[in-house]
Amino acid sequence: MSLTNSNFDDVRNWDIEHHLHPWEGMEDPAAYERTFVEGGEGIYVTNEAGEKFIDGPAGMWCVQVGYGNTDIPQAMAKQALEMAYVSPFSNSNSASAQLAHEIAKRTPGDLNTVFFTTGGSTAVDSALRFVQFRNNLMGKREKKVIISRQKAYHGSTYLSSSVSGKERDKGWLDQAEGLVYFLPNVNPYVRGKAQTVAEFLDEKVADLENAILEIGPEKVAAFIAEPILASGGVIVPPKGYHKRCLEVCRKYDVLYISDEVVTGFGRLGHWFASEAVFDIVPDIITCAKGLTSGYVPMGACIISDRLIEDISGDASKGATFSNGFTYSGHPVSAAAALANIEVFERDHILEHVHKVTPLFLERLHALAELPLVGDARGEGLMGCVECHVKAEGDQLSMDHEVGGMIDAHCAKMGLLLRPLINMCVFSPPLVIEEAQINQMFDILGEGIRRTTDDLVRQGKRVA
Amino acid sequence: MSLTNSNFDDVRNWDIEHHLHPWEGMEDPAAYERTFVEGGEGIYVTNEAGEKFIDGPAGMWCVQVGYGNTDIPQAMAKQALEMAYVSPFSNSNSASAQLAHEIAKRTPGDLNTVFFTTGGSTAVDSALRFVQFRNNLMGKREKKVIISRQKAYHGSTYLSSSVSGKERDKGWLDQAEGLVYFLPNVNPYVRGKAQTVAEFLDEKVADLENAILEIGPEKVAAFIAEPILASGGVIVPPKGYHKRCLEVCRKYDVLYISDEVVTGFGRLGHWFASEAVFDIVPDIITCAKGLTSGYVPMGACIISDRLIEDISGDASKGATFSNGFTYSGHPVSAAAALANIEVFERDHILEHVHKVTPLFLERLHALAELPLVGDARGEGLMGCVECHVKAEGDQLSMDHEVGGMIDAHCAKMGLLLRPLINMCVFSPPLVIEEAQINQMFDILGEGIRRTTDDLVRQGKRVA
Repeated sequence: MSLTNSNFDDVRNWDIEHHLHPWEGMEDPAAYERTFVEGGEGIYVTNEAGEKFIDGPAGMWCVQVGYGNTDIPQAMAKQALEMAYVSPFSNSNSASAQLAHEIAKRTPGDLNTVFFTTGGSTAVDSALRFVQFRNNLMGKREKKVIISRQKAYHGSTYLSSSVSGKERDKGWLDQAEGLVYFLPNVNPYVRGKAQTVAEFLDEKVADLENAILEIGPEKVAAFIAEPILASGGVIVPPKGYHKRCLEVCRKYDVLYISDEVVTGFGRLGHWFASEAVFDIVPDIITCAKGLTSGYVPMGACIISDRLIEDISGDASKGATFSNGFTYSGHPVSAAAALANIEVFERDHILEHVHKVTPLFLERLHALAELPLVGDARGEGLMGCVECHVKAEGDQLSMDHEVGGMIDAHCAKMGLLLRPLINMCVFSPPLVIEEAQINQMFDILGEGIRRTTDDLVRQGKRVA
Repeated sequence: MSLTNSNFDDVRNWDIEHHLHPWEGMEDPAAYERTFVEGGEGIYVTNEAGEKFIDGPAGMWCVQVGYGNTDIPQAMAKQALEMAYVSPFSNSNSASAQLAHEIAKRTPGDLNTVFFTTGGSTAVDSALRFVQFRNNLMGKREKKVIISRQKAYHGSTYLSSSVSGKERDKGWLDQAEGLVYFLPNVNPYVRGKAQTVAEFLDEKVADLENAILEIGPEKVAAFIAEPILASGGVIVPPKGYHKRCLEVCRKYDVLYISDEVVTGFGRLGHWFASEAVFDIVPDIITCAKGLTSGYVPMGACIISDRLIEDISGDASKGATFSNGFTYSGHPVSAAAALANIEVFERDHILEHVHKVTPLFLERLHALAELPLVGDARGEGLMGCVECHVKAEGDQLSMDHEVGGMIDAHCAKMGLLLRPLINMCVFSPPLVIEEAQINQMFDILGEGIRRTTDDLVRQGKRVA
């Protein structure tokens, strides 16, 4: 629908008046001035005024191949012209069949069965419902508790939100009760001063085992974990954590769901990070985002042969997995995902991530020396710079203020940051070049320095 | 990704080995021979062998403008090339802002705030979470029960599935407990022989009021209802039902969620059916499917100004609606939806639906005379022919068998039917012409007659 008869003020007003955004503050939705992102090329986006920015978060951890790619849109248009929609309930289509095959080729171990969804939230929701279904069929109707972790983010359906551990998101929304148990924060940054990382690791693994024993193994269905907790603030658990947690799970017949919505499709230099980086073959992997480089909605949960065998043949009791979506395996989404895989391979994107990661992490970690920075952490092309000023009053307000100040300074210099409160999170398009990494961190460093100056001028103690 | 090195047997094997479809039977997934739908034009689709069929269900109640439309793919490709992804959390984009405006222009009454999702399930999940959020903010933490109906279908997340009332889907999957109350079937076809439709209507409205009183109005948050229960078998409640139910809801401060995932965007000849057909202005409308004619995943829940006012300003208590998806308001989906609206208007699709509906319903109702047909019902371009043979043994198996036989006969004559067990459901692309309606029902009638002959030959009593 042409916008030729409208001017941009109309568009902004429509957005304010008619569009309720995710996580929108209800007090005065009109008060938040959103940037309209209207164009892009590579790692850059342009706003409604034509101003150009580096896109630090790659949209939302998703635009792996960068903006302005032509292969994916062409593949989408071709598929939509040929066959735009097929019901996955009764029929099939070669695009989704081929994508299931291409995904299964790239997953670790025996994770060979792909169930398509519309994004990460529905991938987690379906994964959890599959676990319930399997345990019911196996006569383990009481084995249903999901163990998750503080700061985890697994989605925004009622169920996937219930297993998310970001407490600030929960105040006014209901959660499924009795289904979830949360382990303490696994971020080594929050450990006591006297504790070594090795001791912290032992403690975090023991947290899982103790929780299983406390609840009772016969009641615990699964442990769900992002390999790196993304929107919780790029929390990287101590080395060896996942492997040891998997051993604990195996010991008590607890399934391991690896939520790779963020880490999948190249963020850490591999199709999937579970085995390649963390040396685990989980029971279920969930993915979305990078699966299509964000060009069109799609998610998937990928199930191991072992789980499928648990409920196949006679063990199926004639049951149907009564779950799925009109848009499961959508042909246009599948065509986009196939083109995305092709671009990854043609342009050697995984190899590129390996090549530029050392510089990315070096520049990231160097920021830790700035007085405002409490911690700078990351892995692959995921990074977080956590900034702190001790507040005299409300710490959360102070944290929001500091994040907002850094964001504003960086925007003036051409970097779109969008901090999570006081945490500047980076997940740039995977095609980022070394010179662009330097440019990005140069701006961030300067933004933090200018913010520090502002805070000092305001009489705040920054250290 | 090119298929040139593969042959179709590979594709079929990939689908069997790696693709778990929605509602798939677990006993032997390879046993079900799926039709691969690979091409289409208007109301016709073609399978992997190039055979052409009328698509009776329009994919899954969604391909409103038909297959092979060029405007929507072009709009999608243009948007994806310009700006493929924008985070709706912190930023915005003119396509989603304009779509919110265009939707709000077409909704009844004061339903002016659009929250975007990835499909119907997430639209319902978000609508229910919004109701929980609003009631919590208003200090009504105990007012949470959702009243739904037997045979209702509202989606396949844990929460939207929990408010669905198709009991056969539920056996092996868990449901949220204590949150939902189901009213009896509202299908006049199942009423007692002595009961008039007017008496049945009184009873169904009383069912709702009695349920509210039994649970306690202070505990009932909302009533959720498809105007016509779609996948429950195109159940059309008696005339006046919705308006009277809304009055009951108003009396007890119970919200009314009208689930227009199927009826929205032209199925009954209007953008939305709630007010235009059923004379109600609900509190929330959910939509998906026809919103993009199925060309790309998208859903929305649309909230009334009244509800937004309940929790705005001081009443917001500073709260954030901590709900939403990476792909909420996806620019490519929004561009597709805008192009879809433009096609509807340019091609006068709503007017066309009004023009061809009388013939559709006349041909549909005429089938009721066939001995195998128990009921033929519908409204707009939605129809259902329910076929019954009294079984000596298991009725469900017999119903499946009859549906399968009709399906096979119709497929041979060029009609893709895909019955819901024993119910042949129709929701053809809205662009269907009168000659095509005649062709579709000619084939169906012949398919039912041939099935009857087969059954008689088998010694079954058909009447």
